[in-house]
Order: sequence, then C-alpha cells, then structure tokens
Amino acid sequence: MSLVIVGSVAFDTLETPHGRREKIVGGSCTYCSLAASFFTQPKIVAVVGEDFPEETIELFKSRGIDVRGLEIQSGKTFHWEALYGDDPNQRTTIKTELNVFENFSPQLSPDYTKAEIVFLANIDPDLQGDILSQAKHPKLVAMDTMNLWIKTKPAPLLRVLEEVNVYFANDEEIKMLAKEPNLIKAGKKLLERGPSIIVIKKGEHGALVLGKDSIFGVLAYPCEKVIDPTGAGDSFAGGFLGYLDKIKTFDDEGEIRKASVYGSVLASFAIEDFGINRFKSLSLEDIEKRFSQFKKLVSF
Amino acid sequence: MSLVIVGSVAFDTLETPHGRREKIVGGSCTYCSLAASFFTQPKIVAVVGEDFPEETIELFKSRGIDVRGLEIQSGKTFHWEALYGDDPNQRTTIKTELNVFENFSPQLSPDYTKAEIVFLANIDPDLQGDILSQAKHPKLVAMDTMNLWIKTKPAPLLRVLEEVNVYFANDEEIKMLAKEPNLIKAGKKLLERGPSIIVIKKGEHGALVLGKDSIFGVLAYPCEKVIDPTGAGDSFAGGFLGYLDKIKTFDDEGEIRKASVYGSVLASFAIEDFGINRFKSLSLEDIEKRFSQFKKLVSF
Repeated sequence: MSLVIVGSVAFDTLETPHGRREKIVGGSCTYCSLAASFFTQPKIVAVVGEDFPEETIELFKSRGIDVRGLEIQSGKTFHWEALYGDDPNQRTTIKTELNVFENFSPQLSPDYTKAEIVFLANIDPDLQGDILSQAKHPKLVAMDTMNLWIKTKPAPLLRVLEEVNVYFANDEEIKMLAKEPNLIKAGKKLLERGPSIIVIKKGEHGALVLGKDSIFGVLAYPCEKVIDPTGAGDSFAGGFLGYLDKIKTFDDEGEIRKASVYGSVLASFAIEDFGINRFKSLSLEDIEKRFSQFKKLVSF
Repeated sequence: MSLVIVGSVAFDTLETPHGRREKIVGGSCTYCSLAASFFTQPKIVAVVGEDFPEETIELFKSRGIDVRGLEIQSGKTFHWEALYGDDPNQRTTIKTELNVFENFSPQLSPDYTKAEIVFLANIDPDLQGDILSQAKHPKLVAMDTMNLWIKTKPAPLLRVLEEVNVYFANDEEIKMLAKEPNLIKAGKKLLERGPSIIVIKKGEHGALVLGKDSIFGVLAYPCEKVIDPTGAGDSFAGGFLGYLDKIKTFDDEGEIRKASVYGSVLASFAIEDFGINRFKSLSLEDIEKRFSQFKKLVSF
C-alpha cells in the first residue's frame, strides 16, 4: 500500500439547491484519500490549522489513512466558499481564505518519498514540481489542476505535466491548456506533452479516458439527488488511484478502465450528501454493487 | 418495412467553425429518413417548394426512401439559418423562413396510415396530433419537439406525448417540459405522462435512454472533427427507428439498447461533413464497424 496524496484539507462553506452548510470539512486531499481508503491505505500530505476538528483526523485514522503527513500549524484552516446552481457543473467561488495553506511547503518524510503512486491534487504547480522532485522513482504520478493555474502559471504547469503519467482534468481545462476547442484533439495534444493517460472529467456527463492508442468512456452514475457536487473530481481520482494501488498494476489498459469506473463510482457516492458525509456510511459492498450497475448501464 | 417520418425537408444556411454553407439541403425529415434508409425503406411526409433540387429527390429514391408523401408546392422551400460556436452544443438561430411549410397540413395516403412506426419530427404539436389521428393502430409512435413548442404550446404537446411510445428530446427540453432541474427525475416525471421510453440526447455527451424500470447510457462517438452538428438528433432518431423497423421488434429492452447505439452511430457520421454529404458515401459496413467501436469504447 503505497499511495501518497498531496493536496488540501479544508473547511468548505457551500450553498447548493439542497441547502447551505457552513465550514464543513472538505478539500481535495480529504475527498481523494477517503475515496482511496476503500481500496488501500493512502498517506496524506496537507496542512490544517489548530481549528481543525480532531474528530475528522480520527475518521481518517479509522479508515486506515496515514496522517503522519498532515501538519497542524498555528492559525486557521484553509476556507473556501462556493455556490452551486441547478446545474451541478456550474459553480461560483465566493471566497478563498488560504490561511495556513498560504505557506504550505511540505517535506516528504523518508517512507513517503518511496511511494509507488504520487497524486498531486490541485495546488500551485511550483509546489507540485517541488514535491515531485522529492519522490524517489514513483511508478505512477498523477496530477490535477485548475483554470487559475492554467491562466497564471502555464509554464511550470506544463513542466509538471511532462513528469506525470495520469492527468485528471475537466473538459474546460483541457481545452484551455491545449488551446484547442475539440475535446479529443485537445486531449491528444496534451498526451504529447508527457502523460500516457488523460482522464477528462465531464461532471454529470461522466469521463473520457484517453491513452496514446485507446479511448474509454465512462458514464456518471445517473443520480436523482445531487446534494453537493463538491469533491466529485477528487473522489474520482481517489477511487481510480486507490484501486491501482491495491492491484499493483499501473499500465494495463483493462485495469485502467476498471480504475476509471471505480473513480466514477466513488464520485457518484460523494455527491449524494453534503461534504464527506456519504463516505462515513459507505461500504465496499455498496461500491461493488454500483460497479456492477455501471456495467449494466452501458451493456448492449 | 413500414416507417413513416413526418417533418421538414428544408434549406439550411449554416456557419460553423469549419466554414459557411448557403442553402444546402437539410431538415429533420431529410436527416432522419437518410439515416433510417440504411436499415429500412422509410416513407416520408413533408413539403418543399418548386426551388427544391430534383437531384436530392433522386438521392432519396436511390436510398429506397418512399417520396410519394413529399409534396411539391408552388413557392419557396423552408429556409433556416444558424450559427454554431466552438461548442457544438451551442447554436443560435439567425433566421427562419417557413415559406411553403407555413401551411403544411398533410393527409396521409391509405398505405401510409397503416405504418407500424410513425415518427413525428419537430413540428407544431397541433400538427403532430392531427397526423397521429390519421394513423391506424401504429405499433410504435415516436416524437421530437423543441423549446419553442414547450414554451408556446405546452398543452397540445403534452396531449401528443400521452400517445407516443418514444420521446426524443435534448436535456434542456426535458428539464423545461418537466419543470425539474435534475435530468433523471425530469425524465421519470415525463415517463408518467405517456411514453414508455425517453431518449435524452446530450449532443457530444451522448444520450440516456430511460424506460419505466431501466436506464441505458450511450456515448457520443469521440469525433475529432465536428464539421457541422446539424441533424445529429434527427439522424439519431433515424438510426434508432430504422433499426427497430428492420427487426420488427418494438419493446425488447436489449433491442432498444442496440437501436440507441445505432442512433448514436448515425448521428456521429452525420456531423462529419456539412449537411447530408456524409450520408452520400456511407455504407452499412461503415455503420457496423463503428457499432463495434462503440462496444469497445465502453467495455470494461
């Protein structure tokens, strides 16, 4: 079990058509590691303030997550506020208070540097590059990013992209980074920049998984109640990478397909309740059942 | 072979990122019947003006399409002008000149009234209702519509909906008609209004096929060159209904799934060139090959 996840552990204030929640636990590292914890025992690298609930750290531990890389600094935890419309793909950021995250510059401990899989969640590309340089011969490196970094730091971002195997991005980001309006062409252009796999996340429309000579389409599970879309993408990455870490196979196309479906399965659960609530009651049996439903959903 | 298609045969002036075409042949009935013609010999019901090219009527005939229901009236053919952005799902109508279509009020000839499948393409719901009342015991009735009719004639539209088995609609239309922002919930609400199957078309994101107790997801073929998105939806309907007319099975879930994939296959070809051009060189072999690619695209 050797998956290191670097990203944010945060407070989110969210308003969706189903209600408002103030300062509930969120963050890319949180969603990703909880999703991955159903397959493996991920190690997290993140920073929180003294206001972060001990209860959540206990939850992480109870799920087998290695929290030795979770720094607790004096000050306040990263806080993000967002508003969702009826279309779960539409989100407006209201506020971002970096707080202790502002000076986040982690040093990986020796056993973390030997991780076989490293996931660089959406953080400053310079920081992603720095962390990656600390990792010793990972077998698979994956990254996520956001439109902010594509606009403000394209050069360091493209440098990190050269080093990664799997790039998770949403459709708009892919088009923006590749400067190409056709999604498939955009993905293929970026495949030439380093990654061997690009996972194009399309929210409620599922995801396309592009390889050098392959393309795989996975649907989003048809949810009747999207309570809170936050964390769907990170949960996808967590399911995907957690599964690969469990099976210790990193480049088999059939397994990448399965990993993608597990990603979509975990994302579909994440959005069924506010924040990380759904993960608290989720079981591997629920996950396997939905995995089978995904098969039925597309078979003909 | 007993499929009647009622809709428009038209001139389209189109501008897409790949170029502009003036008054090329288009129309819902045109796309749908050409797509269906790879499986069966559809009968069309439409009206054109004296300016409509004989060459296209010959093309219809050469594809086995029964054109006895295509009236040629004095005056000009229906003309529609539209502009597409980089996102093929975004379309702006510039101009609609109804011309001879304004007084379109067809009387089905006796052998047309005995059709086993009737497709009411996107036309005034009152006209759809009138045509449907002429059909004698069809085994399957399908319809399409557009946001204009949902806004201006919801009552007659809902009356037609009660009589149909298959409703083809795009995601926005479904949400608008059901007054429900969640797509799956919206579809289920409309299933209670009559249809046993709702095909929710999502453009480049594929389609969801909802039945009373089933849900099937079909992807759009990942096209690198979307030259002209016009007619994709009608080509979907044509592939879907043409296949069902060929196999003479109207309510088997497995066959509905296959029909949906054929629909998506035909739509994927339609958009590879301007207007109906791609259909001129298309073969059943091309269609079967892409059908197999669709299987590969989603299998895991």
